[in-house]
Amino acid sequence: MKSKKQYVASIRKSNAEAYLRGRRVKDVATNQFTSLALQGIGRIYELSSDPKYWDLLTRIGENGRRISAYCSIHRSRTDLINRVKTARLVCQETGVCTASRCCGWDAINALWHTTYEIDAHRGTDYHKRLRRYAGMMQSRDLTCAGALTDPKGNRSLKPKHQPDKDVFLRVVDQNRKGIVVRGAKSMIGGAIGSHEIIVQPGSGFSEPEAEHAVAFAIPLNAEGIVQIVNMQPGAERKMQEGFDKGNISYGSSESLVIFDDVLVPWNRVFMNGETEYTAELVTQFVLLHRMVLGGCLAGCGDVLTGAAALLAEYNGLSRQLSDRLTEMTYLSEALYSQALGAAYQGQPTPSGAWFPDPLLANVTKLSVTRLPYDIQKIAEDISGGMISCMPSELDLRNRRVGPFVEKFYRGGQGVTAEKKLRIARLIESMVAGPGRLGALCMHGGGSPAAAQMTIRQMADLEGKKDLAKKLAGILS
Amino acid sequence: MKSKKQYVASIRKSNAEAYLRGRRVKDVATNQFTSLALQGIGRIYELSSDPKYWDLLTRIGENGRRISAYCSIHRSRTDLINRVKTARLVCQETGVCTASRCCGWDAINALWHTTYEIDAHRGTDYHKRLRRYAGMMQSRDLTCAGALTDPKGNRSLKPKHQPDKDVFLRVVDQNRKGIVVRGAKSMIGGAIGSHEIIVQPGSGFSEPEAEHAVAFAIPLNAEGIVQIVNMQPGAERKMQEGFDKGNISYGSSESLVIFDDVLVPWNRVFMNGETEYTAELVTQFVLLHRMVLGGCLAGCGDVLTGAAALLAEYNGLSRQLSDRLTEMTYLSEALYSQALGAAYQGQPTPSGAWFPDPLLANVTKLSVTRLPYDIQKIAEDISGGMISCMPSELDLRNRRVGPFVEKFYRGGQGVTAEKKLRIARLIESMVAGPGRLGALCMHGGGSPAAAQMTIRQMADLEGKKDLAKKLAGILS
Amino acid sequence: MKSKKQYVASIRKSNAEAYLRGRRVKDVATNQFTSLALQGIGRIYELSSDPKYWDLLTRIGENGRRISAYCSIHRSRTDLINRVKTARLVCQETGVCTASRCCGWDAINALWHTTYEIDAHRGTDYHKRLRRYAGMMQSRDLTCAGALTDPKGNRSLKPKHQPDKDVFLRVVDQNRKGIVVRGAKSMIGGAIGSHEIIVQPGSGFSEPEAEHAVAFAIPLNAEGIVQIVNMQPGAERKMQEGFDKGNISYGSSESLVIFDDVLVPWNRVFMNGETEYTAELVTQFVLLHRMVLGGCLAGCGDVLTGAAALLAEYNGLSRQLSDRLTEMTYLSEALYSQALGAAYQGQPTPSGAWFPDPLLANVTKLSVTRLPYDIQKIAEDISGGMISCMPSELDLRNRRVGPFVEKFYRGGQGVTAEKKLRIARLIESMVAGPGRLGALCMHGGGSPAAAQMTIRQMADLEGKKDLAKKLAGILS
Amino acid sequence: MKSKKQYVASIRKSNAEAYLRGRRVKDVATNQFTSLALQGIGRIYELSSDPKYWDLLTRIGENGRRISAYCSIHRSRTDLINRVKTARLVCQETGVCTASRCCGWDAINALWHTTYEIDAHRGTDYHKRLRRYAGMMQSRDLTCAGALTDPKGNRSLKPKHQPDKDVFLRVVDQNRKGIVVRGAKSMIGGAIGSHEIIVQPGSGFSEPEAEHAVAFAIPLNAEGIVQIVNMQPGAERKMQEGFDKGNISYGSSESLVIFDDVLVPWNRVFMNGETEYTAELVTQFVLLHRMVLGGCLAGCGDVLTGAAALLAEYNGLSRQLSDRLTEMTYLSEALYSQALGAAYQGQPTPSGAWFPDPLLANVTKLSVTRLPYDIQKIAEDISGGMISCMPSELDLRNRRVGPFVEKFYRGGQGVTAEKKLRIARLIESMVAGPGRLGALCMHGGGSPAAAQMTIRQMADLEGKKDLAKKLAGILS
Repeated sequence: MKSKKQYVASIRKSNAEAYLRGRRVKDVATNQFTSLALQGIGRIYELSSDPKYWDLLTRIGENGRRISAYCSIHRSRTDLINRVKTARLVCQETGVCTASRCCGWDAINALWHTTYEIDAHRGTDYHKRLRRYAGMMQSRDLTCAGALTDPKGNRSLKPKHQPDKDVFLRVVDQNRKGIVVRGAKSMIGGAIGSHEIIVQPGSGFSEPEAEHAVAFAIPLNAEGIVQIVNMQPGAERKMQEGFDKGNISYGSSESLVIFDDVLVPWNRVFMNGETEYTAELVTQFVLLHRMVLGGCLAGCGDVLTGAAALLAEYNGLSRQLSDRLTEMTYLSEALYSQALGAAYQGQPTPSGAWFPDPLLANVTKLSVTRLPYDIQKIAEDISGGMISCMPSELDLRNRRVGPFVEKFYRGGQGVTAEKKLRIARLIESMVAGPGRLGALCMHGGGSPAAAQMTIRQMADLEGKKDLAKKLAGILS
Repeated sequence: MKSKKQYVASIRKSNAEAYLRGRRVKDVATNQFTSLALQGIGRIYELSSDPKYWDLLTRIGENGRRISAYCSIHRSRTDLINRVKTARLVCQETGVCTASRCCGWDAINALWHTTYEIDAHRGTDYHKRLRRYAGMMQSRDLTCAGALTDPKGNRSLKPKHQPDKDVFLRVVDQNRKGIVVRGAKSMIGGAIGSHEIIVQPGSGFSEPEAEHAVAFAIPLNAEGIVQIVNMQPGAERKMQEGFDKGNISYGSSESLVIFDDVLVPWNRVFMNGETEYTAELVTQFVLLHRMVLGGCLAGCGDVLTGAAALLAEYNGLSRQLSDRLTEMTYLSEALYSQALGAAYQGQPTPSGAWFPDPLLANVTKLSVTRLPYDIQKIAEDISGGMISCMPSELDLRNRRVGPFVEKFYRGGQGVTAEKKLRIARLIESMVAGPGRLGALCMHGGGSPAAAQMTIRQMADLEGKKDLAKKLAGILS
Repeated sequence: MKSKKQYVASIRKSNAEAYLRGRRVKDVATNQFTSLALQGIGRIYELSSDPKYWDLLTRIGENGRRISAYCSIHRSRTDLINRVKTARLVCQETGVCTASRCCGWDAINALWHTTYEIDAHRGTDYHKRLRRYAGMMQSRDLTCAGALTDPKGNRSLKPKHQPDKDVFLRVVDQNRKGIVVRGAKSMIGGAIGSHEIIVQPGSGFSEPEAEHAVAFAIPLNAEGIVQIVNMQPGAERKMQEGFDKGNISYGSSESLVIFDDVLVPWNRVFMNGETEYTAELVTQFVLLHRMVLGGCLAGCGDVLTGAAALLAEYNGLSRQLSDRLTEMTYLSEALYSQALGAAYQGQPTPSGAWFPDPLLANVTKLSVTRLPYDIQKIAEDISGGMISCMPSELDLRNRRVGPFVEKFYRGGQGVTAEKKLRIARLIESMVAGPGRLGALCMHGGGSPAAAQMTIRQMADLEGKKDLAKKLAGILS
Repeated sequence: MKSKKQYVASIRKSNAEAYLRGRRVKDVATNQFTSLALQGIGRIYELSSDPKYWDLLTRIGENGRRISAYCSIHRSRTDLINRVKTARLVCQETGVCTASRCCGWDAINALWHTTYEIDAHRGTDYHKRLRRYAGMMQSRDLTCAGALTDPKGNRSLKPKHQPDKDVFLRVVDQNRKGIVVRGAKSMIGGAIGSHEIIVQPGSGFSEPEAEHAVAFAIPLNAEGIVQIVNMQPGAERKMQEGFDKGNISYGSSESLVIFDDVLVPWNRVFMNGETEYTAELVTQFVLLHRMVLGGCLAGCGDVLTGAAALLAEYNGLSRQLSDRLTEMTYLSEALYSQALGAAYQGQPTPSGAWFPDPLLANVTKLSVTRLPYDIQKIAEDISGGMISCMPSELDLRNRRVGPFVEKFYRGGQGVTAEKKLRIARLIESMVAGPGRLGALCMHGGGSPAAAQMTIRQMADLEGKKDLAKKLAGILS
């Protein structure tokens, strides 16, 4: 497995074409915004090299060598449970979404199953390709972004009716070497810190839309790939020195990844036109994501709860705010417990890969779009008006006004203004900044409406009606 | 194991002294209110005799014989998980709380652990007595009510300061044969349908309160025990013929069980004065209950969702109300998934008995005091004003007005008024009647405040503060 | 104006044909259920005779004589404001919905406006008839039920496609004397305690549905009118002696009122076929109702808050529960304040009658379908498990078990068991009994969905888009 | 009255000592951050010069001249109602909090009353001074910040026990010319765009804390006053060119205002040591603020609803998202209606100044700390993941990647990427940027806990208990 240092060096070396605020990112490892995103993912490499975390963060691969769990296939109920625990741990340690490693993990699992199914019914050899790809990913300990979301254009039109067909990524050509793809994938978490990207269809497609039914993996520095690293709310803060960024060590990132006629070699193509499997592939991918989010948000919730508790302590208000801190704890644990339930009820597929219970994973996702907002709100309540307006570190360092900041922001019991400002900035970043929970929880893994649609489909209302009929004495 | 018929006969025969609405209950099996409560518990006996449910509802006892799960000790993580699944199943089948069997189950598990601990530190032989008692309970397939709640008098006073000490059950005498207890236990679910009652301290007691630190089991027809079967909201409906009772086959019950100087033989005494174990005993008992409730409310939620879906269908509104039915499903499954998480994270004690994760079990309980209210509200929204005002079955059967009821309550597609009224009455009973979810979920297993207190104690705020400090760069 | 005694006597004398639980109600003033409903309405007569309440409860009629406000036309902003205040007062005093007087009040106001409009455009003389009717209503101080809701049959079909056209009330014949109507109106609040019923269309009708476009007033003892008094959840309690009914003095009622070919004289017909005014009539009627509910639920909320505070006090827990009592207060006042806002923003129509702001009245209604559920839930939380299971008064009076009830239900500071049980039964009746807030607030004045539809129509999204465009610098 | 241009020029000229991010603000009118804050307040001057808005935004002063409403005393119920309407209008027009003008308005009203009371009981001449000051404020059309919040140090200590007494602003000296004050006021909305600051005690003080019982007005460029303009979450965006700031024309600001031994002439001192009036002064000030916030948040809610509706339209999803837009509308109007209710129930004081109903104003405030969070959440739900991650304007303008942004962010029906990005950035700024509703609503006018405390005090639980007793038949 790679060390954190090796990881950063390898990404730096790959030098993918990326833009941020209209300028080419020259060195991802020194650019103030992207370097924090790399540190976030890098923390996973760092933790994985510590035997204390091997149970959660590593697996023994097919060849008997220790591999990163992030490159593994879920082979048991325990693997699913540990997936949730891993998410909570990493979010506790980083306070941010390190989406790319997770999405790549989701992607190879979803493809493991789907390629197996396609091959079984179509006689193709996608699964063999995928196994080989997974082996390479494991042995080189790669971080692979997972890509689903197409730009979609006018959302009231189906893909086949879009004036510009490229708003859904598609195959525009194929030749002896491979396929040529055009389009884009948007909101790709962690792409700037990833070696490769694993692309899947963004939705279920019907037969006349076969050109869009494509899945593949490709290095992000391949010719024709251009990234635009998005500007998150408040992300400018991340580009400054000092503690005003709140979370001073880690960051997240999302990119628009453009495929400007990119050649994908055949051995990296995992679906090409099999529209009837697109919905299933999407479903299995998001299932994992929707379950895992319960762990992620619990972990971020832990950090925010701790920060709020600390500010309360600095202000001498621990006792008065104890009820609200309890509620924050409750909310995080409720998410975690739901995710564990979804994991426990998971089942294997014929391919050998395990997936969470589809109903409970979507239920977890729906909770994830709600409870973290309450966590944020309570943190803001506890923190007082300060979160929305406080002096900057530059004021604290200024000769004229610094002493005033020190004097008037001091807490109780010898707590310096700097301590109070640091923790308040951390809360700010998680409530109203680039690391706010809402960014992670509302649309990650799909919208609430998508989760609701799945819950509706799986609700078994007819079975429930029968229960009611029996109790009410209705015979037919 | 007993058949349902044998169960009912055995309870009838025991002829415990019980009062309902100021009158002695002469025959529990024919009294209109109590007979429905017996049917609820009886349904568990009925299901247990069907091999289809053996996985969930039975275990193999120490002597190799099949016993009811309700008399068993949890010996694995799977046992805890199955406990939750059992609760959901039984509530789906009955639509009511069959509390006594569950509370007896909780009680022998909590005592299994606590007696083991007391013996280990005090050299007593409570655990041996308890094992023998459990063996008898298993072989005779008994339903044992579990009792915790003392009347408490003035709640702002500690037990030792109460003017009337009996408001906390206590030992008033002891002799060669056993101990003599006085006091009462209130809100004892299913006592009227139980063979015995297992009594535990209602709270943690301090040393000067040793007389209250008592646990034991006793048949409900023992001399000196008097029950008052409580009148639930709307319970009069249960005492009528016909379908207006909504849930026409099953009911629940709760009793005030009075101990008017009752002699308890020594072999049935499981704690007697060991105050330092009282808090632990209460804790382990409620832990199980608080986890299990997630399953119960999911099961009752399923029935109510089915009933609401059916009424929507009868009114021709299935499509329009589909979003709200989805939300009801979400809420039930969220409770279930949380309970599964709490079970999965369970751990064994030195006694060999497993208990749920204490934090997650209390988190589940807190959710249980909230989400079911939303389920009820949506059911009421879906059902229209009818739930609060509709003709009675007697109107439907009346020669003069019956035809009007039939004409004006008819649904779409040949749905008769009777069908609509039956399902509406079922909803009524679960939203505003004796079977309403709120009755089960708010105070069952303790109040929301009690769950919050435990969550506060287990929140590990210091650990969370450390996470936040690291991310904010605060060194100490 | 009538005294309460005269009111009761006049209703008794009218002896309308009514059925309850399949039996003819022989004397509404002595029947245990209906008499309480009469007391509820009667309390308005009683309060109105006290000069202290004249500001709110009376007006000076056109002839200079003092009349009941309940028979008046709103002629100013202050009248609307006072309407809300009256609702709160009466609900504080009775703890129940006294719907009929309110709905009749709504009805004459809605008809005042609509008949004026019809006459203005159609040259009819409905308004003159209505004025004359209102004069008679005022001088005889009548309680008139207001009727809107048709049975509707299959709700996915329009009235004109119903297999049985009578599921929407309609004119089946007309002659020299008047019109003949057939059908029913359901969930008619307070009909059993009303002199007359004012019938309006239950929804907007289109031209081919002209037979349903009918409004009129008729005494409830007219030939062909049959009432079925509905059985509310838990209403059996109301038919018992003693305090277990909770609210011992007052009750509410709702009836299915059947029109079995009833002749309505021409001078009592206020609309007959003018379909294009049906939607407007419904709208104006429900506007008043939707605003007023804010006052009603605040008043009932006050009672429930007081009851919960009292039980907390009896249990010695006032201090610990103070936060939750504050939240209950907040919820009631939020409803009240919204209703006042809706009233303040009211406007007059050309007829001279004032109506609330349509957007804010519907907003109030939507709040009314939500906040009272929280009030109920907190009351249940505060009250402990007792609300769902307690001994009956008959147990307290029983020689054998009465002393136990007294001993074990005693509160702190000399509070007798009876006091505790009385207040707990009052809470029960408002949380899970016939007087529960949910019954009043969810569907009274229309469903939440109906309020949402109106809010959608009045939201002026285009105006709001323009605001946003300006701030974002979007030119077109 | 001043024109907007005159206003900006006058502030620029005053050249108060202010720091932003550690540097002296040299020219408030050109500094990118502060100039937007000036534009926000300036918009009020602009609107006030348009006769269309005179009803709301102006009054006729004592001398018969038209003055800004923002400098007026509330002299009627209508003035209070118009205060709420004004708040909504200005927030609709600017999308931001223009706090200083409002807080100055609150302050002169609160002081109008309190100085009147002090003079009446103490024979002082504060009220005369205040009247003169108000006259000057009116004739020069000043914007006066209103200051309340002290830094407070260790919040578990009372002012008199603070190690550094300056954490509550205080009088350190007084001489012939006036008093000398030391300390700071934090989170002072709009100070950077204000001519003067009106300072009041930050809480109720007891007698030994007389040095803190001080109220006065002083120009912000007075010697010894230093401002630190706070860095809001995401405020860096405001310092960039272009549309990424979302709200391109307006901003808000808050300052820490330091009083480093500032001399306040006697004619500007309105309280000096009268501790027994401090609580009352605070109360009257916040009452106005707490009511007004209902209008502010409704106005900002309107903008955010419009923006969300526009993005839905651009994405071709107006129909699908209609329910959620309706809910947003409901939430804004509920706040507005509550505020109107609080205004309507207002009462005059002996001084002639009117104040809102204290209970309903606090109820409005509590709603204001809750409902806007739901508005934000729905906006984020509607907007999709874009709000949290989208390209910057600089990407759109870049030659290499601009065409990709244009291609992949285009909406339906010829909607350009720029339009979509502009409206998405506006939503971002109101959900997760410097203009987010949460910043305005949670702690503006005091914390939710402060509002709850007042509601508790005014709840009249005893009166409510009496209502309940009567209905339950409890005699004493």
